[in-house]
Amino acid sequence: MTTGVRRRMGVEERRQQLIGVALELFSHRSPDDVSIDEIAAAAGISRPLVYHYFPGKQSLYEAALRRAADELAAHFLEPPEGPLGARLLRVMGRFFDFVEEHGPGFSALMRGGPAVGSSRTNAMIDEVRQAAYDQILAHLGIDDPSPRIALVVRSWVSLAESTALIWLDGRRIPRAELELQLVHDFAALAAVSAAYDEEMAALLVRILADEPMDGPFGDLVGRLMELVPAMAKVPAPRLR
Amino acid sequence: MTTGVRRRMGVEERRQQLIGVALELFSHRSPDDVSIDEIAAAAGISRPLVYHYFPGKQSLYEAALRRAADELAAHFLEPPEGPLGARLLRVMGRFFDFVEEHGPGFSALMRGGPAVGSSRTNAMIDEVRQAAYDQILAHLGIDDPSPRIALVVRSWVSLAESTALIWLDGRRIPRAELELQLVHDFAALAAVSAAYDEEMAALLVRILADEPMDGPFGDLVGRLMELVPAMAKVPAPRLR
Repeated sequence: MTTGVRRRMGVEERRQQLIGVALELFSHRSPDDVSIDEIAAAAGISRPLVYHYFPGKQSLYEAALRRAADELAAHFLEPPEGPLGARLLRVMGRFFDFVEEHGPGFSALMRGGPAVGSSRTNAMIDEVRQAAYDQILAHLGIDDPSPRIALVVRSWVSLAESTALIWLDGRRIPRAELELQLVHDFAALAAVSAAYDEEMAALLVRILADEPMDGPFGDLVGRLMELVPAMAKVPAPRLR
Repeated sequence: MTTGVRRRMGVEERRQQLIGVALELFSHRSPDDVSIDEIAAAAGISRPLVYHYFPGKQSLYEAALRRAADELAAHFLEPPEGPLGARLLRVMGRFFDFVEEHGPGFSALMRGGPAVGSSRTNAMIDEVRQAAYDQILAHLGIDDPSPRIALVVRSWVSLAESTALIWLDGRRIPRAELELQLVHDFAALAAVSAAYDEEMAALLVRILADEPMDGPFGDLVGRLMELVPAMAKVPAPRLR
């Protein structure tokens, strides 16, 4: 009976081991460049045995992507406590951890391509985007966002993706700066929207009321205010 | 000889007609849902004759995409005259014209999928992004951008794409508002970057010096300044 239990565990463990090995390989090189032979060698098993657990590279890739997607979605979870700017900054830190860990695979997936683009992989990407969107709305305390608020949140999710991809392509800016910049970008996109949308303006005022001056949002406002005289061409008396 | 000339013209004309018919069909429905039979019917020729000009749907799709990509890249061309905000606003107007004309096909392409994702289609998408990037740098008067300026421009190109895709999904915000908002988003992303990067700050000051108060950038600054007392929590004396 012990043997039976162990054998059943073994099957699932073997699958999980293969997924882990595959995810590691797919993370560090474009999935197009990873062969089943390599996966078999890295797992220490034969090529036919790999096919015993997964019908082909695509299904193993999708299983690996499933694990990565769940991992990334879990990174978005953040206790709803404290100022929003600090929460978003912690989430961005974990997002860039993920991007750094899975760099080439993340790039290949997001840029699409023969081995990575399928309706199932695209559905998983959309699912992760939706998880990010839902989490941010929860942090904003909104159930039923206006079209403009929805646009700001979805735009920001997309901006985080593209910024991460640009970062991976040469890493010319330190990631910590980009994590902070993305939090600032959120405030900036929200502010643009607030300039035209009362609901967004009310939300922004509510968010900023909780922000400390030494947090990421306060920091940005302070820096921008120093730029304002040069930028705004608004006569100083109008500011009083 | 006249006949010979006409026949040679005829071949290229037929190809161009098929590309036009295919582009029209691929623009209004996902390419996955468009069959060669439909393209043949719409062109008024037989299915085998379509295959005489194009080996298969993928090659016809890629030819249609080539025409669309060239058309879109041409939309980015804008005389380097007048304030930047107004130039970007005109480009955004033409970009949304294109997106509106090719809506379902644009969505399908950008979201990827079996019929549309290939290394050649992805290369064409990247080529259009690069054309947009190059055009904007030219308007900024920059040959060799700093990493942060390059990031702002590439991020903005990506933001315009994602905003257009979100707009197509329900059209809940008038496109004219989104065209203006994207110009404002450019200023906002540039301002965030300027808060941390001297080169970007100098560029922003130079841009804004040419902007009229009633242009898209001046308009935004005015509106944001009205929000500032509620937003900034910066004591009024610090502003003087």
